[in-house]
Amino acid sequence: MSDTTTRNTTDFGLALVEAGYLFPTGIQGVLGRSSNYAAIANGLNALVDAWGADLGATGIQFPPVVNRATFEETNYVQSFPDLMGAIHVFTGGNKEHAELMRRSESGKDWSDLLEMADVFLASAACHPVYPMCTGTLPSEGKYFNVFSYCFRHEPSEDPARMQTFQMHEIVFVGTPEEAQEHRDAGLEVGISILRRLGLDMDVIPANDPFFGRLGTAMAKGQLDEVLKLEGTTPIGSPDHQVAIISGNCHRDHFGSPFSIETADGAVAHSACVAFGVDRITLALLWNHGLDLDRWPAEVREALTL
Amino acid sequence: MSDTTTRNTTDFGLALVEAGYLFPTGIQGVLGRSSNYAAIANGLNALVDAWGADLGATGIQFPPVVNRATFEETNYVQSFPDLMGAIHVFTGGNKEHAELMRRSESGKDWSDLLEMADVFLASAACHPVYPMCTGTLPSEGKYFNVFSYCFRHEPSEDPARMQTFQMHEIVFVGTPEEAQEHRDAGLEVGISILRRLGLDMDVIPANDPFFGRLGTAMAKGQLDEVLKLEGTTPIGSPDHQVAIISGNCHRDHFGSPFSIETADGAVAHSACVAFGVDRITLALLWNHGLDLDRWPAEVREALTL
Repeated sequence: MSDTTTRNTTDFGLALVEAGYLFPTGIQGVLGRSSNYAAIANGLNALVDAWGADLGATGIQFPPVVNRATFEETNYVQSFPDLMGAIHVFTGGNKEHAELMRRSESGKDWSDLLEMADVFLASAACHPVYPMCTGTLPSEGKYFNVFSYCFRHEPSEDPARMQTFQMHEIVFVGTPEEAQEHRDAGLEVGISILRRLGLDMDVIPANDPFFGRLGTAMAKGQLDEVLKLEGTTPIGSPDHQVAIISGNCHRDHFGSPFSIETADGAVAHSACVAFGVDRITLALLWNHGLDLDRWPAEVREALTL
Repeated sequence: MSDTTTRNTTDFGLALVEAGYLFPTGIQGVLGRSSNYAAIANGLNALVDAWGADLGATGIQFPPVVNRATFEETNYVQSFPDLMGAIHVFTGGNKEHAELMRRSESGKDWSDLLEMADVFLASAACHPVYPMCTGTLPSEGKYFNVFSYCFRHEPSEDPARMQTFQMHEIVFVGTPEEAQEHRDAGLEVGISILRRLGLDMDVIPANDPFFGRLGTAMAKGQLDEVLKLEGTTPIGSPDHQVAIISGNCHRDHFGSPFSIETADGAVAHSACVAFGVDRITLALLWNHGLDLDRWPAEVREALTL
């Protein structure tokens, strides 16, 4: 268990700021990370990269913004509209700019002087992979090892609920059976990486916060069909279980809109094992304490700290 | 000189995609980076981190979004409105969501159903540093070693003009004399790092693309007062000189709006040396070729490749 003395996640967040791991920016869930914090996160990323290399996965770091057309095809707009971040840009001339400046300086709304761009903030690291797979897959399917900063608009004092956070995923696209196998066996590999880092892990069915009236049915479907499993561990308080890894069976959720076919001509399925890099970093700090020198030697070694 | 055979930057971009260093996403200037590409970038980041450590700089990785209030204080809205990226979010209920879905599915504009968030896409890695300095500085000033993904809305086929790119800066905040000294001596340190990596570097006064009628005067002032210097090197073609590092003397541009004072009560000045991590990675690939195994041994060693 933790040797930190905080009793709730807000206190834990304050302790991390006090110890210089996180830097507030004045906005809940938008935080700078110290070099020490980044070293822990990068140690974890290297372990996931090593797994990806074993699988022969194509490794890609995606930027934090994605093609809006791709984003709209993922159905995220339907399922989680309250979490997404659209990007709006200014395309006016001198006259519109003068009006924009007048409003900005007097604290008035200037959002209608902008227009929606053809890019969107990334909501998940794996989204850009699917349009890259359009067409027919090789018979063994395809593995990807992808990383990006993601954005979800859910301001919170809880350091484990950042608005802008790092996600690292091992994705498989192929036959339904192999996709299910990747979700199940792959999640076990991921959990074993985290257990070796000293984290107590539980695995439970995920219950994502689908939006609104339609969302209730979608959440029930996700649970009933056990499409997504989460690995949880305490962060900030012994009874505050947080999902730090998930295994998600997408079925044809991406294969169908992005026209991906298996070698025998069926609609491809996909699955991912997603590591919440920031949450895992926080869980390690909660579990092993804020003094890196006192972390267990085998954990320091595994993370090359 | 380069052993690549491309004659212009568009060809060089295609060669990088062909060789698997960059992955197109369907949007100009929004590109995935391969593991090899990331290894080069990270090798450079480690060299900048080592310099930051020598200076006793506080190291911070910032996320790709910043506090909107901070962004508006930096004057970026006035100088480069055409490059910025605002973030808009959905805060409606079931009824508004239904309308949003109707419009999204029929390809109609749904931007007016969103509202401007209190976060903005980062335009420069150093912006979040200044509100952290509000108040009185220690007598020796403060150094920061900061990194973030930045966004500038300028779609282009040129791989050296990405919309979303990585910036790594060594920032100083303190007296006017020390800030000027950091810009001048610090830029030389940065240039020497790049020369050791085998890049031919020229240093010229910068001529930033300030927007509109007012911008013409601002650009002239920047040039006349030599506030910003750029280190350039060819990318993609021998005569395509690209700025890959800059030294920028901000004077009181940030000290004044963010109420930063030196130990003796004067308005603080600031300066930064900014490494364009993606452009430097591209310059190295252009200069040393697309086969990492054939790069000079001393460059591979410096980048721990």
